[in-house]
Amino acid sequence: MEKRNIPKDFPVVILAAGEGSRLRKGGNHLPKPLAPLLGLTLLERALLTWKTAGVRRFYVVVGWEGKRVAAHAQELAKRHGLDLEVVENPRWQEGNGTSVLAVKDRTPAPFFVSMVDHVFEPSLVEGFVQQVKDKKSTIIAVDPRVTQVFDLADATKVRLEEDRVVDIGKEILPYHAVDMGLFFCGPEIFQALEKAKKEGDGSLTGGVKKLAAQGEMCAVKLEEGFWTDVDTPEGLEYAQKGLLTCVARSQDEGWISRHFNRHLSRWITARLASTSITPNLVTFLAFALAVAAGCLFALGKLGTTILAALLVQAASVVDGCDGELARIKFMVTPWGAWWDTLLDRYADGAIVLGITWEYSHGHGEAWPWILGLLSFLAFVMASYAKKEHALRFGHPLPRDAGDKLTRRDLRLFAISVGGLLNRPFPTMVALAAMSHLWIGWMLWRKRKG
Amino acid sequence: MEKRNIPKDFPVVILAAGEGSRLRKGGNHLPKPLAPLLGLTLLERALLTWKTAGVRRFYVVVGWEGKRVAAHAQELAKRHGLDLEVVENPRWQEGNGTSVLAVKDRTPAPFFVSMVDHVFEPSLVEGFVQQVKDKKSTIIAVDPRVTQVFDLADATKVRLEEDRVVDIGKEILPYHAVDMGLFFCGPEIFQALEKAKKEGDGSLTGGVKKLAAQGEMCAVKLEEGFWTDVDTPEGLEYAQKGLLTCVARSQDEGWISRHFNRHLSRWITARLASTSITPNLVTFLAFALAVAAGCLFALGKLGTTILAALLVQAASVVDGCDGELARIKFMVTPWGAWWDTLLDRYADGAIVLGITWEYSHGHGEAWPWILGLLSFLAFVMASYAKKEHALRFGHPLPRDAGDKLTRRDLRLFAISVGGLLNRPFPTMVALAAMSHLWIGWMLWRKRKG
Repeated sequence: MEKRNIPKDFPVVILAAGEGSRLRKGGNHLPKPLAPLLGLTLLERALLTWKTAGVRRFYVVVGWEGKRVAAHAQELAKRHGLDLEVVENPRWQEGNGTSVLAVKDRTPAPFFVSMVDHVFEPSLVEGFVQQVKDKKSTIIAVDPRVTQVFDLADATKVRLEEDRVVDIGKEILPYHAVDMGLFFCGPEIFQALEKAKKEGDGSLTGGVKKLAAQGEMCAVKLEEGFWTDVDTPEGLEYAQKGLLTCVARSQDEGWISRHFNRHLSRWITARLASTSITPNLVTFLAFALAVAAGCLFALGKLGTTILAALLVQAASVVDGCDGELARIKFMVTPWGAWWDTLLDRYADGAIVLGITWEYSHGHGEAWPWILGLLSFLAFVMASYAKKEHALRFGHPLPRDAGDKLTRRDLRLFAISVGGLLNRPFPTMVALAAMSHLWIGWMLWRKRKG
Repeated sequence: MEKRNIPKDFPVVILAAGEGSRLRKGGNHLPKPLAPLLGLTLLERALLTWKTAGVRRFYVVVGWEGKRVAAHAQELAKRHGLDLEVVENPRWQEGNGTSVLAVKDRTPAPFFVSMVDHVFEPSLVEGFVQQVKDKKSTIIAVDPRVTQVFDLADATKVRLEEDRVVDIGKEILPYHAVDMGLFFCGPEIFQALEKAKKEGDGSLTGGVKKLAAQGEMCAVKLEEGFWTDVDTPEGLEYAQKGLLTCVARSQDEGWISRHFNRHLSRWITARLASTSITPNLVTFLAFALAVAAGCLFALGKLGTTILAALLVQAASVVDGCDGELARIKFMVTPWGAWWDTLLDRYADGAIVLGITWEYSHGHGEAWPWILGLLSFLAFVMASYAKKEHALRFGHPLPRDAGDKLTRRDLRLFAISVGGLLNRPFPTMVALAAMSHLWIGWMLWRKRKG
């Protein structure tokens, strides 16, 4: 096999030919590749996951309900601008090894192989693509975290000697890891599959077993990131939960965000995912909630203040959904992140304005407004100081307690609590004072070293 | 000669042995390497210029007043943490070629050679270091912009055939470029210098002439950036002007900054350079001027308003000096840039506060304060939007007219003019409206592609 130094220039073969009968037993009448999961079909998610990892060419092997799956694949190729070829495997019933054999005349090895019904956190596939470049043989990705596998009884296990696979199968003992349904195949795979097939085993596992017996099968352990295979309705639900946890995990690290907002935003995101609402629209909705809160604060009745307080916290929760939704539907864009951050600052301005307006009525002098302006200055500068630091130093400020105390999730939560206690103005001013102090402290600390 | 792929791992030999009698005729009694130029001695500037280009080892060859120059070099090495060795050249009166020969037993070739009395814009030396890596012979840096040379009659000219030097000297004709006093020398230089010396020419030019005759002398043309040699008091003045122009040029590209502020700030920077005032202190002074302007605006008398208006523009001018001073004295730090940008935002806050406070007195309602808060929001967001864009997209927003209209230099100038006309508040609000519109327009435009 030639030297593989740019693995992402190799194509990926996506196996989408199986019947997926267990998933359909849940009342679902779609072929498995078309089964929806958080707003994308399994096939679409597989394609976009590999695209995110940098792979640029795709072969989708179809079998059961081949025409329908092929039509969907072609439509996805068009929508996402993919270089994609559909390969029919009339022998799909003889095992998924025949689906790999079906590409033999279409593309030279090496190539990646991925199962359409395996769901991966994109960083995990990226990690596999990265690690493949130093290996010389056919490679299987395996997960040593066996206790975390959803349906371990049904999983394919792998016995290892260092990084070589010595046996593979559902029933082997002992085993060290679980097959993740991710492969990198050299040309030797075809011969191995044909040999296994002749002996009556048409599965990809059969071919891998042959290579393992010849000492030509390598394993790459991937120990971080979420993945699962989706065979049943319960598996689908598990996949949904897992993916939502991943995207919420990559949110910023604010305390309120992590321990409170995230649970709600994840729930909302799951509902939004199956609609056509875009992340950028969600960003705007969060902004609109904050502006509404500002207006209600300005009215100054107890009822409207309490409503405003609730809306502030709602805005904070919804502000987490846009990023989650964008990540889960592969819709992350620099523009979206830019739009989100700018609207956050405008939203803060609206809240400060409303709170200050109301407070200035009872206290006719200019000083409520001066404090209001200084509060807004504090809130915007807490963010600005971080951005500017990242630009000037090339790395972010440390995410210490001071950072967490000046984050937006905590600020909105505190203002919400202050509002519920009918004391939004003093709460706001106290938060602002803390932010100014933190900025001063950061400047001082960084100066000293 | 071995392959030179990391040229900045090679040392630089700085020739600082000459008498520099013409410079001393101006009443200066210091040895030339100790002559001050914008707060640094010529030797310090040479060392820091090469350090900026990434060079890490230094040989300083001393001759006339050798002990004094050596002591200064050692002190600089300590202050700037340089790996520096002083080499004495007792034969310095026989020509500057003997100074290169003096390092023969101290360091193997190749190495860079630089004249202490040549002043370079750092990017130019960096460019030379970059270009050297593909060359195979001894190299001289030459400037084809002959009409821009300060004292062309006294300059050493170079005749070229493609990138080979075929002749060098003060009197040769025709010539294509001028010797910049920057060399990269292979071991063949020693033999060439000894040969020339035997024939009565102890200068570096003599050695270069020999190599040129053997076809072993390459030239690298550097056509951008400022440099000059400093032989006379007039040359020193020319160098000062040139360096100040360079550092002002790298300032941001605002209209007011370029066509007005820069001329004043350059003048101030030249004065500040010879004091021990640091750039970070200048940053604070600019901030203090803006805060003073804010306080004066708040007083609201015609006289104080006019004074405030003048201070606003003064703050804008001084805000240009910190960066200029930092660049001209090699004191640029990420912290300084961070500090500068954060204080700019606080300074804007102080000005908005003062103007709004005064205006609210005559117009008892809350709306002046609402407009004030929205104005501050506009000014800070005009900057924030640019920073966030750079972070999210990895490149800055286009520097178009909208960008220039929302820059701080124009903003402060307009507020100053508005103040002189006793209309600071409406001016501020109009500027703010423009900034908000620009932000909206940018978001819209970038979204569409």
